Amino acid sequence: MSLLEGGGTYDVMQTLTINKKRLEQKINALSQIGKIAETGVCRLTLSDEDRQAVETVKQWMEEAGLTTRIDHFGNLIGRLEGENPEVPILMLGSHIDSQPYGGRFDGVIGVLGALEVVQTMKEQNIVPSMPIEVVAFSDEEGCRFNKGLFGVRGILGKLEDGELERTDKNGITRKEALIHFGCDPTKLKESEYPEGKIAAFLEMHIEQGPVLEAKDKPVGIVTGISGPLWLTVELEGFAGHAGSVPMPMRKDALVGAAKIIVALNELTSADCSAPTVGTVGSMNIFPDSRNIIPEKVSFTVDLRDIDIDRRHRIEKQLRTRITEITEEHQLICKITEDTNSEPRYCSERIMNVMREESEQIGLNPIDLMSGPFHDSLAMSYVCEYGMIFVRCKDGISHNPKEFSTIEDISLGTELLYRTTIKMASE
Amino acid sequence: MSLLEGGGTYDVMQTLTINKKRLEQKINALSQIGKIAETGVCRLTLSDEDRQAVETVKQWMEEAGLTTRIDHFGNLIGRLEGENPEVPILMLGSHIDSQPYGGRFDGVIGVLGALEVVQTMKEQNIVPSMPIEVVAFSDEEGCRFNKGLFGVRGILGKLEDGELERTDKNGITRKEALIHFGCDPTKLKESEYPEGKIAAFLEMHIEQGPVLEAKDKPVGIVTGISGPLWLTVELEGFAGHAGSVPMPMRKDALVGAAKIIVALNELTSADCSAPTVGTVGSMNIFPDSRNIIPEKVSFTVDLRDIDIDRRHRIEKQLRTRITEITEEHQLICKITEDTNSEPRYCSERIMNVMREESEQIGLNPIDLMSGPFHDSLAMSYVCEYGMIFVRCKDGISHNPKEFSTIEDISLGTELLYRTTIKMASE
Repeated sequence: MSLLEGGGTYDVMQTLTINKKRLEQKINALSQIGKIAETGVCRLTLSDEDRQAVETVKQWMEEAGLTTRIDHFGNLIGRLEGENPEVPILMLGSHIDSQPYGGRFDGVIGVLGALEVVQTMKEQNIVPSMPIEVVAFSDEEGCRFNKGLFGVRGILGKLEDGELERTDKNGITRKEALIHFGCDPTKLKESEYPEGKIAAFLEMHIEQGPVLEAKDKPVGIVTGISGPLWLTVELEGFAGHAGSVPMPMRKDALVGAAKIIVALNELTSADCSAPTVGTVGSMNIFPDSRNIIPEKVSFTVDLRDIDIDRRHRIEKQLRTRITEITEEHQLICKITEDTNSEPRYCSERIMNVMREESEQIGLNPIDLMSGPFHDSLAMSYVCEYGMIFVRCKDGISHNPKEFSTIEDISLGTELLYRTTIKMASE
Repeated sequence: MSLLEGGGTYDVMQTLTINKKRLEQKINALSQIGKIAETGVCRLTLSDEDRQAVETVKQWMEEAGLTTRIDHFGNLIGRLEGENPEVPILMLGSHIDSQPYGGRFDGVIGVLGALEVVQTMKEQNIVPSMPIEVVAFSDEEGCRFNKGLFGVRGILGKLEDGELERTDKNGITRKEALIHFGCDPTKLKESEYPEGKIAAFLEMHIEQGPVLEAKDKPVGIVTGISGPLWLTVELEGFAGHAGSVPMPMRKDALVGAAKIIVALNELTSADCSAPTVGTVGSMNIFPDSRNIIPEKVSFTVDLRDIDIDRRHRIEKQLRTRITEITEEHQLICKITEDTNSEPRYCSERIMNVMREESEQIGLNPIDLMSGPFHDSLAMSYVCEYGMIFVRCKDGISHNPKEFSTIEDISLGTELLYRTTIKMASE
């Protein structure tokens, strides 16, 4: 094994308390439900495939000795009772719904890893001081009704008006889908958790990025989720025949856009040690004809940083550059702010537990931030939270090609297990 | 009037031989046929509107004393006999078909201006040494069957295989449209001109660009038509979540494309005195999602210069920059050459006649190249040709907003008249 650095001779896999084979079997079994292509899954939230997956995991939870229930949001919850049943619980979990063209690991390893953790605790006769709940949250992905983190926001009382009336592409409302799933949307209140009821949340997830692979690390400790700033930039110049308007007389909206894209790339690449990322992912051009100078171009900006001050600074620099560039090319510019999320930091206390426990088993994980959202994001507003990332091949996710080795997943699960025991004994 | 520079006191409008009012009336009358919006026209080639326009101009030609015919390509030809009916003819003209959302002047002023020229000659009892033919060419625009310069290529025997089978968006073939128009597609050969039969071609046209307006000139002498180099550049990088792939690890196809667009703009703008133009007018992005790094981007390049050596030099520099940029961003790059037209220069002799005649009437036109194609382009391969450009507002064309003043058109027509007389007396 070359999963470890530094130690060299010490083999962490031999120290695994959790059952790697059992975990692997469950991951493989779950990947058969809603299977697409060779290695993909399609388990849209509240679909029949989703229900089948939830029932399967529910049965596994019961086999592991947990008390289970499916709440009215569609969340699956398995409970391991603690010495003090009345104190705030320690919650572990993630989701098992998927993208329409999704992979086998996204969310799944967080749920099955958490189940493996409590199953191992039961086998080891470890009784936590507080109750532990393992949750498979309903509709993390958000692709069916175009709004995600539904189940986790549901139990926290954070749904917005009209969410039950949102429709999927077949015109089915979320309310109808919940009823079809076996939930009772008139009883949502009963499924909410009272304030203060959740002490902490732990989530293991595939990284969905290439950092751990590049650093040759099986596992990373997440420092926080950096919410994005989303802008839409609209530029308007003046169309003209590509052959007849001399360069100095042009108001080419695409040249302006190109300079802004280059500027964003420079600003976010300047400090290689910073995790700042900036992306233009979508663009529209009008009239989009090969021999006409582009008159209108609109494009998106996605800017993220775990350091909100640095993000603000870069945004300001970008806006200055946009002004300079649009003036230089005599373009009219309109900037709309679509989303402005703040970074949500992981608990220092939990990160320290993870670091100590990593050391105990010879793991040497790096810290990294999470660009994408997770169920943890909603949790961050009500309790302390911690996240473990597991390396995934080429950083690919939301794609059937998504892949993590069972060795890496087991190491992440072992760290989750040890972190849980430590937190459950405090 | 502020149309003239230098002279100051001399008013060229008072020296007009051609009949400005008559010309204006014809332009206005023709703009009613296929009228759209307040000021636009839609006269697709071989349509009923086109036929009505051709019949109208044919009648005006006959009133002016010309012998007329509509050939089997759909060209309208009016002939003023010369002293020597057998010598190669002097041809004048342009087109009266239009874009679907076109203007009143594109092509029209070249046909009605030429008609005004020969009508004035008749009135002045000027008999040319060679025959003069005024032509309204069929389907210059090419928008109905997606291939233009049909009529002019037809009479020169330059049609390609399958042109009669090309269909419009309603599935009507050009052959069917020609028959509907009253032509006999089995007799196309009869309408061809034998080699050497055309001595020279003169075309007046609106500039379709902003140069004359910027230089405060009503009229310009065209030095040549700079055919474009058309490339398609396809870049392939690697998609990834906008939040999770660090900047140094990205293979962002759009950042690469943006740098190439900026490079093209710099290369073609470096020498302000050169008429080189470079344009990226159309672009496709995949997957085109705001939080996914663009994996594939393809875009067009349009590069033009009246100096083919300079164009080659800039193309080479651009290709070097593309290689550097794609290597820097680890992109796979494919460049396809879609069109590679050579510049076609106007006759020095004719340009000199135009310059001399301009001086006679106190006009002080500038030389400029033509980016867009015209009927002259096809003519350039069989005879010497000259072109006069008339200023148009804001450089707008292929749009109902297209506009030139009757004063400017009259000055262009006067120059066309004097150039014609000079050439017809040689």
